[in-house]
Amino acid sequence: MTQVKRTLEFVEVAPRDGFQSVGPIIPTAEKIRIIQALHAAGLRRMEVTSFVGPAVPQLADAAEVLAAAQALAGLDAQVLVPNQRHAERALAAGAKHLAFFLSVSERHNANNVRRSVAESVTEYARIAAIRPAGIKLRLNLATSFDCPFDGRVAEAVTLSLLDQLLEIEHNAEVALCDTTGRVTPGHVTSLFASAMSRFPQVPAWAFHGHDTYGMGAANVLAAWHAGVAVMDASAAGLGGCPFAPGATGNVATEDLVWMFNGMGIETGVDLAKLTIAARDLTHLPGAQTGGRVRDALERTRECRA
Amino acid sequence: MTQVKRTLEFVEVAPRDGFQSVGPIIPTAEKIRIIQALHAAGLRRMEVTSFVGPAVPQLADAAEVLAAAQALAGLDAQVLVPNQRHAERALAAGAKHLAFFLSVSERHNANNVRRSVAESVTEYARIAAIRPAGIKLRLNLATSFDCPFDGRVAEAVTLSLLDQLLEIEHNAEVALCDTTGRVTPGHVTSLFASAMSRFPQVPAWAFHGHDTYGMGAANVLAAWHAGVAVMDASAAGLGGCPFAPGATGNVATEDLVWMFNGMGIETGVDLAKLTIAARDLTHLPGAQTGGRVRDALERTRECRA
Repeated sequence: MTQVKRTLEFVEVAPRDGFQSVGPIIPTAEKIRIIQALHAAGLRRMEVTSFVGPAVPQLADAAEVLAAAQALAGLDAQVLVPNQRHAERALAAGAKHLAFFLSVSERHNANNVRRSVAESVTEYARIAAIRPAGIKLRLNLATSFDCPFDGRVAEAVTLSLLDQLLEIEHNAEVALCDTTGRVTPGHVTSLFASAMSRFPQVPAWAFHGHDTYGMGAANVLAAWHAGVAVMDASAAGLGGCPFAPGATGNVATEDLVWMFNGMGIETGVDLAKLTIAARDLTHLPGAQTGGRVRDALERTRECRA
Repeated sequence: MTQVKRTLEFVEVAPRDGFQSVGPIIPTAEKIRIIQALHAAGLRRMEVTSFVGPAVPQLADAAEVLAAAQALAGLDAQVLVPNQRHAERALAAGAKHLAFFLSVSERHNANNVRRSVAESVTEYARIAAIRPAGIKLRLNLATSFDCPFDGRVAEAVTLSLLDQLLEIEHNAEVALCDTTGRVTPGHVTSLFASAMSRFPQVPAWAFHGHDTYGMGAANVLAAWHAGVAVMDASAAGLGGCPFAPGATGNVATEDLVWMFNGMGIETGVDLAKLTIAARDLTHLPGAQTGGRVRDALERTRECRA
């Protein structure tokens, strides 16, 4: 494995991917307090909420959460949007960074946003067309590797969809997402290598992985060695995908901070503060959490005391 | 990361490392039943027990367990021994494969076997001297990377101890063990690269890792890419080290089988059978288990049903 010098960036997704997976509505003030704690731990980029329809009542307070997040110094607060209408709502609320999402798999896209993939591509074109100057755009490709309904997604299918999307707008960071957590490191390496070589115009690549099958850190390591610098992660491993059966468990931010710290790669994150913030997340009613570092550090402290 | 063509071999350590960590005595018949189930899942090498003193009552049935394991077709049954006296007991019981262990760290060795490292080196020399022809020997180097008492172990210290040990006897597989689970992939890569280059006479290298900090699969991946082909793992992640505070959680065999299956690397293991055997292990009274694949596969089945 070659060591590559580049700047690692985490996208903390607990406030969106994580909260969305929690059943009981989290009070807005509590969400804001959590975002502030994650920011205080050094995280400088977060997916803070999503502008979506009333089918996701947990995120109905998107505008208020976004406003609070944008008040934090130096925080790049991205918001997830599924279509033009919600992108317009996000922009009206002052969003500076939109993350559009669609799935490579027809069945997952239908379940997730009730559209065909072609219809989602059209929405991407509409969002690209209305995007004001200075507003950042990210493209999240769910089921890039594996679909909860159809299994392994052929690389050619993912690359072909990227062909269409990047012809519309290539000035966007592209996140390849392992929605199910079933991908293994060789596939991560291989798809990123193919995509990076085929689409050199893409300014930045990101990886969004899950730890459902214990591959969280290994897959992030594979992405890092493939040249990816932007990693999605969720404090306490909070989250999952309600449309991917069994796919609970984002990779835990604190586990990745532990790994990259050990490898001498700067994360900008204070692990002690992050661990405390992550511990608070595990106390949210209805939270499904994962990760190992949080418990390991606390157990070690107890044993040494 | 380069792909290397070589034969992967698991050493299933649940029957020794795993059982040793369980408080309530497991009936001998139950241990044998578990070893048989792991064998039926395709595992062909196991650390089946340890010949140690009465301080470890859980392994007092070593001779009986060893005999039952050696009755299984094609099973390479290795037994752990801390000194000459117990090596002689193991040989008298018919052991064909001895695994000697000592720690790089003085404090850990004192806690683990109540000897100085120099005294353990002497025991290694004695065992090498009495080893009959045809009896395999493995050298387990605990705290090769990190010590629960003293933190990071300098590579030079580990390599220097290997200098002494390999001068005595180099015709043994060498396992570098991450006793605490605190190692990260860069350190795994680096130490194996240094050791392999310095000791080309060693016939085989092995890695023994823990998942305590979520690095289990990532570290095995790093070892694999460094050229290591022999990986210790424990079904259901059963186990830990009683002298390493917080170090519960061997890397789960089923998680590694999932990873290597996904990478197209032959494991010889039937994952469905292994998952059932691992599930049984989680029901042992007093068992501390880990791993993600077992639950993920079962949750997916439930959700799809």
